[in-house]
Amino acid sequence: MTKGIQFDASGKLTHLLTLEGLSRQALVEILDTAESFIAVGEREIKKVPLLRGHTVVNLFFEPSTRTRTTFEIAAKRLSADVINLGVSTSSTTKGETLLDTVRNLEAMRTDLFVVRHAESGAAHLIAQHVPKHVHIINAGDGRHAHPTQGLLDVFTIRRHKGAFEKLKVALIGDILHSRVARSDIHALNTLGVKELRVIAPKTLLPTAVEKLGVVPYTDIEAGLDDVDVVMMLRIQRERMQGAHIPSEQEYFRVYGLTPDKLACAKPDAIVLHPGPMNRGLEIDSTVADGPRSLILPQVTYGIAVRMAVMALILGGREEPLGRRA
Amino acid sequence: MTKGIQFDASGKLTHLLTLEGLSRQALVEILDTAESFIAVGEREIKKVPLLRGHTVVNLFFEPSTRTRTTFEIAAKRLSADVINLGVSTSSTTKGETLLDTVRNLEAMRTDLFVVRHAESGAAHLIAQHVPKHVHIINAGDGRHAHPTQGLLDVFTIRRHKGAFEKLKVALIGDILHSRVARSDIHALNTLGVKELRVIAPKTLLPTAVEKLGVVPYTDIEAGLDDVDVVMMLRIQRERMQGAHIPSEQEYFRVYGLTPDKLACAKPDAIVLHPGPMNRGLEIDSTVADGPRSLILPQVTYGIAVRMAVMALILGGREEPLGRRA
Amino acid sequence: MTKGIQFDASGKLTHLLTLEGLSRQALVEILDTAESFIAVGEREIKKVPLLRGHTVVNLFFEPSTRTRTTFEIAAKRLSADVINLGVSTSSTTKGETLLDTVRNLEAMRTDLFVVRHAESGAAHLIAQHVPKHVHIINAGDGRHAHPTQGLLDVFTIRRHKGAFEKLKVALIGDILHSRVARSDIHALNTLGVKELRVIAPKTLLPTAVEKLGVVPYTDIEAGLDDVDVVMMLRIQRERMQGAHIPSEQEYFRVYGLTPDKLACAKPDAIVLHPGPMNRGLEIDSTVADGPRSLILPQVTYGIAVRMAVMALILGGREEPLGRRA
Repeated sequence: MTKGIQFDASGKLTHLLTLEGLSRQALVEILDTAESFIAVGEREIKKVPLLRGHTVVNLFFEPSTRTRTTFEIAAKRLSADVINLGVSTSSTTKGETLLDTVRNLEAMRTDLFVVRHAESGAAHLIAQHVPKHVHIINAGDGRHAHPTQGLLDVFTIRRHKGAFEKLKVALIGDILHSRVARSDIHALNTLGVKELRVIAPKTLLPTAVEKLGVVPYTDIEAGLDDVDVVMMLRIQRERMQGAHIPSEQEYFRVYGLTPDKLACAKPDAIVLHPGPMNRGLEIDSTVADGPRSLILPQVTYGIAVRMAVMALILGGREEPLGRRA
Repeated sequence: MTKGIQFDASGKLTHLLTLEGLSRQALVEILDTAESFIAVGEREIKKVPLLRGHTVVNLFFEPSTRTRTTFEIAAKRLSADVINLGVSTSSTTKGETLLDTVRNLEAMRTDLFVVRHAESGAAHLIAQHVPKHVHIINAGDGRHAHPTQGLLDVFTIRRHKGAFEKLKVALIGDILHSRVARSDIHALNTLGVKELRVIAPKTLLPTAVEKLGVVPYTDIEAGLDDVDVVMMLRIQRERMQGAHIPSEQEYFRVYGLTPDKLACAKPDAIVLHPGPMNRGLEIDSTVADGPRSLILPQVTYGIAVRMAVMALILGGREEPLGRRA
Repeated sequence: MTKGIQFDASGKLTHLLTLEGLSRQALVEILDTAESFIAVGEREIKKVPLLRGHTVVNLFFEPSTRTRTTFEIAAKRLSADVINLGVSTSSTTKGETLLDTVRNLEAMRTDLFVVRHAESGAAHLIAQHVPKHVHIINAGDGRHAHPTQGLLDVFTIRRHKGAFEKLKVALIGDILHSRVARSDIHALNTLGVKELRVIAPKTLLPTAVEKLGVVPYTDIEAGLDDVDVVMMLRIQRERMQGAHIPSEQEYFRVYGLTPDKLACAKPDAIVLHPGPMNRGLEIDSTVADGPRSLILPQVTYGIAVRMAVMALILGGREEPLGRRA
């Protein structure tokens, strides 16, 4: 159902809400398009006129300076006009519903909403109610999905490790609450990685996690054995208060990525993290700043990936994306 | 006096502070100009280069994401640069006066200030103190005026109902505290509507309201009888605390616009609301989302009207607006 | 050391962190470049395409609407894209270090950071850690420096008083805590003013202030005697709580710039203030708004000076700035 809503009748990408159900070809087309935008960021004049006269609205019901900035930069590099709207959820529930806010913005003839919301399904709900000329990109909804993060993660892996079918990948951290983990798992499985592992204490693993197509490990050294790619997740410090994690020190000792633990992976394994990092909690600075870390290149690629998604959704294209899928 | 300050010596619109005193021709020229900008919002490239190299400052002393956004979009569609300044009134009173803030902005060679302020007369005060090259648009000052809202309301009526002189119009709600009501009343009377009614409980009607050129009703069904246009006002929930309104339920029962009450109006009567709506307080969702509601088209027209006002003030024009009036 | 970091190997300006150590020729080149940008602000189309496709990030760890606005306007007049980031220091210390924030922004291929921070040395620290393609302008760091303010102050003096070597200049106010004072003193001494005085109560003068190349006065009338330029500093009202200043009334009585006190200076002396002014505390309105005040022209010049610094840093230039210095 979600898949259906993401493509229009001709098979063109019209919303990006989740990576679940996206075909391998659909993913590959986005990655290939992103590859072509990498060059724009390296030029003296980092701007192309693709979306001139289009308006992108950053509609953030949950604050996130970092994610908002990446979408703002990506949209401006495509020559779009950008409107930043930080909407506190309290104010929308008071006088105006979420959908009234959205209907007003679409009546202003804006073209694309980048939506961040604390509730899972918010971007999907909006996409179900907008007219054809309005497009939605999910920039993170609750624990559900963060598809552009998932895309930039697989973009990073493809660029530095090549063919997915040869790769063993491990995701480490708060699998239970992480929308990044969900998007990564969908993309990596669709792209056909050889083996996908998740590593976490039992309290941070969903029940029946195997159904997602992953192999769970609670022992990080066993989980990292022989992997090509190590994908860290951010630990929300709020979890410390609950029963999920005993203490920062204890979590770091058992699951923090140190050079010692990383030594269990392949010698040329790469390390990813979606940021912002908690140094000394889920990752050691020696690893974060070390030669196998791709954490900063991920940020660079994130701009290109977001440009690609916006350009595919709003730009004129001869060949539809989905039809070929 | 206010009228005088709004036009320069040659009769060109230089500030828009209130609709009071604007001639019929002045209003019609703004509406005609707005009509020409409707097409821009329907195009693939929604941008014209009219105000390139001009700087529009959204100077909001009172927060309003929605109104700020409409002005920001309108200015960017005209290719202006936009600076958003949210100024808390407390910080201006502390170290720097309102006029010092404004003088600084004009010294930066900005061209147009869109001013929202909780005090009636604030935009007028600013307009009296700026040099010739700086222009002011009042985006709402206390209970005084909200001229671009008034303009988009009459634009909506003209587009959907044609000649004003044939129309009976009813305004419903908090007439006493509403700047929108004041601007609507001035515009509708100048444009020569056949009959203009205001409908509200006595506690929300100004004393001697007839002097404004309106016929007051406390009975909504009598007030709606045979009208062509129903203009709702937003009820500020803060009024509930005071003696103005007994309770939300009671207000909705007596004055909330339901299909039953709307049946008193002409069968093809249109419904307007400046937004954001309080569904279930001043308006029922069946009406708000029904076939006679123009609430979302109003938002679309609001962009064109704001583009028109900015273009008339800042753009080069051969024939002055006021002289012909 | 600071000087070294501000120029690249070819002698081109690459960061602007402090005016300390900048050569006379380096200062003069910035002032001359600013002079050429004054005309842009007077044109109908106030825009030049110099920095098209470049991204300027206003990275403000300390809020300052006014300073941020001047940099935003300057960057937009140069056709750069501008990203405004208000970062609360608490949020950076929590999850992410200052340098992680900066590394992320540079990974997004942004070109220039305008940094305001409450800690002295913050901009310098950032400049030491960015790669060659990223440039830093210090927009105020703690009590250390505010170089673009210093530049616009000397620009104002040069424009209205001509050759520095003939001028006696007095700085009045909170010399102890003022980053503006530090930048002014460095620039004025390098440019070779005849005499530079600082006037303040002893509690607001640094110990051994003479080492900065200034003559201290606690008596304002003696200090103002025969000066050509009177530079006021803003008094932070927070200082009132401490032992620095007895009371607002007492401070104004003794050090507030009134027409009477100004009469001690030369008859054609000019008055500067960095804003925002505390009228009735450090300056009397008669002086602030009087014929010898250049407080508003300073704001106008500030845009041109900031355009000049950005253009020199980011624009292509044939002849390097520093080599000639």
